[in-house]
Amino acid sequence: MHHHPWQDTSRPVEERAADLLSRMTLEEKLAQLSSVWPGSESDGEDVAPLQHEVSETVDLDALLPHGLGQLTRPFGTAPVEPAEGARALAAFQTKVAAANRFDIPALAHEECLTGFTAWQATVFPTPLAWGATFDPALVREMAAAIGDSMRSVGIHQGLSPVLDVVRDPRWGRTEESIGEDPYLVATVATAYVAGLESTGIVSTLKHFAGYSASRGARNHGPVSIGPRELADVILPPFEMALREGGARSVMHAYNDLDGVPAAAHTELLTDLLREEWGFDGTVVSDYFGVSFLEMAHRVADSPARAAALALAAGVDVELPGLRCYGEPLLKAVRSGEVPEELVDRAALRVLRQKCELGLLDPDWSAAPPAASADTVDLDPPAMRALARRVAEESVVLLDNSGGALPLHPTARIAVVGPYAQEQAAMLGCYTFPRHVGVEHPELPVGVEIPTLLDSLGAELPGAVLTDSPADADIVIAALGDRSGLFGRGTSGEGCDAADLTLPDGQAAFLDALLESTDKPVVLVLLTGRPYALGRWEGRLAAVVQAFFPGEEGGPAVAGVLTGRVNPSGRLPVSVPRGTGGQPWTYLVPPLGLKGDASNIDPTPLYPFGHGLSYTSFEWEAAGAGADALPTDGSAEVRVTVRNTGERAGTEVVQLYLHDPVARVARPVVQLVGYTRVTLEPGQAAEVVFDFHADLASYTVRPGQRIVEPGTVELRLAASSADTRHTVPLTLTGPERTVGFDRRMTCGAEVRVLQP
Amino acid sequence: MHHHPWQDTSRPVEERAADLLSRMTLEEKLAQLSSVWPGSESDGEDVAPLQHEVSETVDLDALLPHGLGQLTRPFGTAPVEPAEGARALAAFQTKVAAANRFDIPALAHEECLTGFTAWQATVFPTPLAWGATFDPALVREMAAAIGDSMRSVGIHQGLSPVLDVVRDPRWGRTEESIGEDPYLVATVATAYVAGLESTGIVSTLKHFAGYSASRGARNHGPVSIGPRELADVILPPFEMALREGGARSVMHAYNDLDGVPAAAHTELLTDLLREEWGFDGTVVSDYFGVSFLEMAHRVADSPARAAALALAAGVDVELPGLRCYGEPLLKAVRSGEVPEELVDRAALRVLRQKCELGLLDPDWSAAPPAASADTVDLDPPAMRALARRVAEESVVLLDNSGGALPLHPTARIAVVGPYAQEQAAMLGCYTFPRHVGVEHPELPVGVEIPTLLDSLGAELPGAVLTDSPADADIVIAALGDRSGLFGRGTSGEGCDAADLTLPDGQAAFLDALLESTDKPVVLVLLTGRPYALGRWEGRLAAVVQAFFPGEEGGPAVAGVLTGRVNPSGRLPVSVPRGTGGQPWTYLVPPLGLKGDASNIDPTPLYPFGHGLSYTSFEWEAAGAGADALPTDGSAEVRVTVRNTGERAGTEVVQLYLHDPVARVARPVVQLVGYTRVTLEPGQAAEVVFDFHADLASYTVRPGQRIVEPGTVELRLAASSADTRHTVPLTLTGPERTVGFDRRMTCGAEVRVLQP
Repeated sequence: MHHHPWQDTSRPVEERAADLLSRMTLEEKLAQLSSVWPGSESDGEDVAPLQHEVSETVDLDALLPHGLGQLTRPFGTAPVEPAEGARALAAFQTKVAAANRFDIPALAHEECLTGFTAWQATVFPTPLAWGATFDPALVREMAAAIGDSMRSVGIHQGLSPVLDVVRDPRWGRTEESIGEDPYLVATVATAYVAGLESTGIVSTLKHFAGYSASRGARNHGPVSIGPRELADVILPPFEMALREGGARSVMHAYNDLDGVPAAAHTELLTDLLREEWGFDGTVVSDYFGVSFLEMAHRVADSPARAAALALAAGVDVELPGLRCYGEPLLKAVRSGEVPEELVDRAALRVLRQKCELGLLDPDWSAAPPAASADTVDLDPPAMRALARRVAEESVVLLDNSGGALPLHPTARIAVVGPYAQEQAAMLGCYTFPRHVGVEHPELPVGVEIPTLLDSLGAELPGAVLTDSPADADIVIAALGDRSGLFGRGTSGEGCDAADLTLPDGQAAFLDALLESTDKPVVLVLLTGRPYALGRWEGRLAAVVQAFFPGEEGGPAVAGVLTGRVNPSGRLPVSVPRGTGGQPWTYLVPPLGLKGDASNIDPTPLYPFGHGLSYTSFEWEAAGAGADALPTDGSAEVRVTVRNTGERAGTEVVQLYLHDPVARVARPVVQLVGYTRVTLEPGQAAEVVFDFHADLASYTVRPGQRIVEPGTVELRLAASSADTRHTVPLTLTGPERTVGFDRRMTCGAEVRVLQP
Repeated sequence: MHHHPWQDTSRPVEERAADLLSRMTLEEKLAQLSSVWPGSESDGEDVAPLQHEVSETVDLDALLPHGLGQLTRPFGTAPVEPAEGARALAAFQTKVAAANRFDIPALAHEECLTGFTAWQATVFPTPLAWGATFDPALVREMAAAIGDSMRSVGIHQGLSPVLDVVRDPRWGRTEESIGEDPYLVATVATAYVAGLESTGIVSTLKHFAGYSASRGARNHGPVSIGPRELADVILPPFEMALREGGARSVMHAYNDLDGVPAAAHTELLTDLLREEWGFDGTVVSDYFGVSFLEMAHRVADSPARAAALALAAGVDVELPGLRCYGEPLLKAVRSGEVPEELVDRAALRVLRQKCELGLLDPDWSAAPPAASADTVDLDPPAMRALARRVAEESVVLLDNSGGALPLHPTARIAVVGPYAQEQAAMLGCYTFPRHVGVEHPELPVGVEIPTLLDSLGAELPGAVLTDSPADADIVIAALGDRSGLFGRGTSGEGCDAADLTLPDGQAAFLDALLESTDKPVVLVLLTGRPYALGRWEGRLAAVVQAFFPGEEGGPAVAGVLTGRVNPSGRLPVSVPRGTGGQPWTYLVPPLGLKGDASNIDPTPLYPFGHGLSYTSFEWEAAGAGADALPTDGSAEVRVTVRNTGERAGTEVVQLYLHDPVARVARPVVQLVGYTRVTLEPGQAAEVVFDFHADLASYTVRPGQRIVEPGTVELRLAASSADTRHTVPLTLTGPERTVGFDRRMTCGAEVRVLQP
């Protein structure tokens, strides 16, 4: 049965892939490095995927005999019944396999940022909301559910998560990011990766690297950055997601870094990723990113030259087509301009991955499990429940100084504002309805999405809901973003903000509302980024911040408003006071922070990590097991948290590092650990962080990250600006250089104390 | 007479300085590395300089016997008659010299950004206005006049010019900068340096380096920058000013670059500046910059450690005191923590400079020429005339589409707005009245400064001037900035802007004015930075932009309004359409510039280099002497410009480079040459640029700047967005690496053609 070693499933992956590669022609190897995008050229028409099969410019009959590396977004471009999509995919894969002499199918990839980006699939909250949960375990569970549903219809790879650390919240893709702190992004993204990979789906880390730091927060803007900031802020999430999450693919970013496009960045894609970090998966291009080397960055004068640059730098697969890695690269290899070894290097990585996925096995299943089913449910009750849990944990109560919340169950409540009865602000840009449907506003969203008003009605059957503040006891103003693609929204890819004024005239709406009523006003924000709220400081009875909370966002936010849910979300991004003065995040060194150096005071209105609860907590008995630890050692840092209020609730205990003197200017504080602590009234728990000295490491020069002897201060805090206890620790022994093997997560144990 | 070699003026400077150094004790050497600031601790009181002599914390009796390196701002902190100041300085120098065993005085430095920053000294336009003149020869003349006046009262060193390239116009010190293009900054700053140095005054290049690129444009904010951007944008002005201007001092910047404070940046201050560029002058600290290493950057835990870091990195002189380089450094050297060789290195540089200045000569003159005069005139008619010429050339006519200018000589003119009758907006932050006087608003400014209203009245005796638009033929709205220090103004050091909205409610003022009148409105801006004007596009009859034009600014602006002056200024910074989306300058690579990548379109309303005239010009017969040139060669690029209007005027012919394909992402265009062409009506001139291939060079990796073979496009243009003729040139031969010896300026010859 096994004619060749590559077909022998008992042999190691490496050997099988190499054997297959050795049997391939140049055309066959190149075919593994590119993809087709079925239906992608229909451009605005409602086409079911895989029915038009491929764009007219691709001659499948000529292409498929050489094989096919990737299949781009087979479900992605129009609403199609999931079962129908699965069947069409299976049939196409059978065709792909039958057409090539090795009988191997394509690797099918899809977007899955807030859930499988297919029609009728569960829409989870956007990544900024995951950050707000401070709950990696829950995010892992969510990602595993997403992965299972993708696997069930024949998908192999998901283009998620986004590991870009927010550097400027005006950036439209802030909603797709997890937050402004690299440790929070790293831990939450790694949990997502681990969850997705646990189902067999290849997780794709994007965007490598620097994309979020574009000048003026303009999408595709150039990135001014040096090697230290890159190493200490931008790269740690990628390191952790590879090392601890086991991600098997990386997508390059569109941007240039200090002039060098990421797609042609050998130092990043090969020297660092492969040689230093030991990554052996695939590097895929962001869509059209190889072509951008010619068409936008102008570092290449032809598709062939663009292909040569990207391939040499370490981009293995061109997505979503074959404009550069097809005929142009073939000719360039034939002419000797590009060494065939570079093609072999990339093809071997692709074949290794296909082998791991079982796609080289003689019995690879062209038909995914669901392909024979009449119906496929991509939004079953269990996934809705999970979407609800993530949404509920992600809602941040910013302010309740007016004591307006929870709402009284029989109150007369005016619910006003553009998003009171609107589904749009529940959905981020990479949900099916907003990503695809933005071109098709008439599309049904595919899943049930209760509005805030409907959800409040369901939560409070005894209340009277109205749309007029006139005779209400309290007013809820629901404001938010319209997410969309390429300038068609107020948030999302290509929807950058000139400043942090509430969009679409909603600042004026809120001004007018406050002017017109003396009733308490509760502001509910459903946004993809933080907006400046200083203008209304002291004038709102309460402020609730949600970040595109997904299909169960209405009930989640309503649950917080009514008190069914005790809010536990914390800010993954700072909420500024003023609309200008960006970029700013809390990771700033001390110079320029105080005194009269500048008349721009960027101190946020609500700091990173901030969030309130309906109960109260006391923090007691903080300390460390020792005053000192070796530069390669660890210490237990403890604090006891007690629920001193009258209802169950969750505190998020945050651990920040303050390094009083260092060899370079460091941020005043940065997050190095955190944990959620859920307590009944009166209950207390001891939180024990396992702080390893590696967590104090920082980069002193390019490529050199060190742990220095000396005293550091660990701050047990309820936010980046609300330290409850300070624990000094002295690091002793020699200075150490730490590499990719460093201890990257701070374990936290929560021990509930007996009363 | 000459007991020792160091006193022998026939010996070389190097030998004399070394000899003197060898005779000095450690205390004496250290005394040469610091300074005292007379009167600096009076803090708000009106003290005449050198009357309180030094702060109470400095014990002159203990200090002076060891000598004194620098005297900080002897004229600077209060209004004092120039002759009195000169006498006091001379007396103090006599005391300094008499107190030390070598009989050598201090090196006295002053600010001189917009003229000698002393009471009653000429106030020239601010550097942004110098940039607008595109006239280095005139700037050189101005600097020579400034230098002469400083020399006349006993000053040796001037802390100017500012070579920071504008990266974000929200930065408060934009007014102190020359513009957003490194070539414009380099050529104008180099002219200033050459002029100042020609008088014997030591010119101090500041701020080395990166200060203008602070995050969020906040003064003292961290600078995210990589080595390529640093080399191609930030450093070229310093290179040129050292190499071609002959500057003898450099001041480090306050900021960190990618985490490393400039004051502790060995790679910048020693590896690059000394070893690669061969600089042998002094590096002085920005005020308190050495202390900032301890107190702000936190890379040092004591004054001694701060001194050790700065001294080792290459900071020779601590200004303005001796907090770190005094007792703390003495102890650190004594204890062996800091090698005495580092002290010797710095002291030798200081002594070499003092020797060059004649301060080691037996007959050094403690009494400056003016010291015996009863009166000293620091604002003589010739300097006022020069201030007028610079101001007149710097006024930019942005728009005259309503044809409202020049004003009719018998018109009824309403002159409104907060700066119609106000001197403040004529003066930048580093003028005596604003820099010192900002603490003392009651101070007389010291020189005559006609207001715009008074100047208009003088220019147009037949016109009727009113302050009410009601019955006027035309309305002039004079808006502007209040310059000040540390948050006390809308522009100036520490007066950063959150966005580019006209400050102090002037946007609303202009809205209301336009709403209330149907008369043509001419907007006159007297600002320290560009402001967003898109909101009024098409609604203004004319727009005139001046940048703090100095004591003769009123007559200069009025002259443009009346037509006595035909405007010839060009924008040294882009004027944006919208208030947000910063930072942006015209030096942007192509990715993200077009298409729907971002909904933020940063295209300026008025581009870099833009400016109108009252006459018209035709550009004809462009071309190059050859189609090709070697990568180490040069080519003549020609264009003929003809004045086709009815009055004499000046065109600014600009030469931009467009590199279609390069090894890194490059700006779409960048300025490589320019010249002013003044023509009578009907007259024509041929402009011949001597374009050397080095001007096409760029940095491909840290430390490697190359000229590549291939085709480049030279654009003869009236602004960065208004190309009149395109000349392709092919660079042939081998790729070359170019270093500090590269050809940095593009010569331009203007040959007036006979009719």
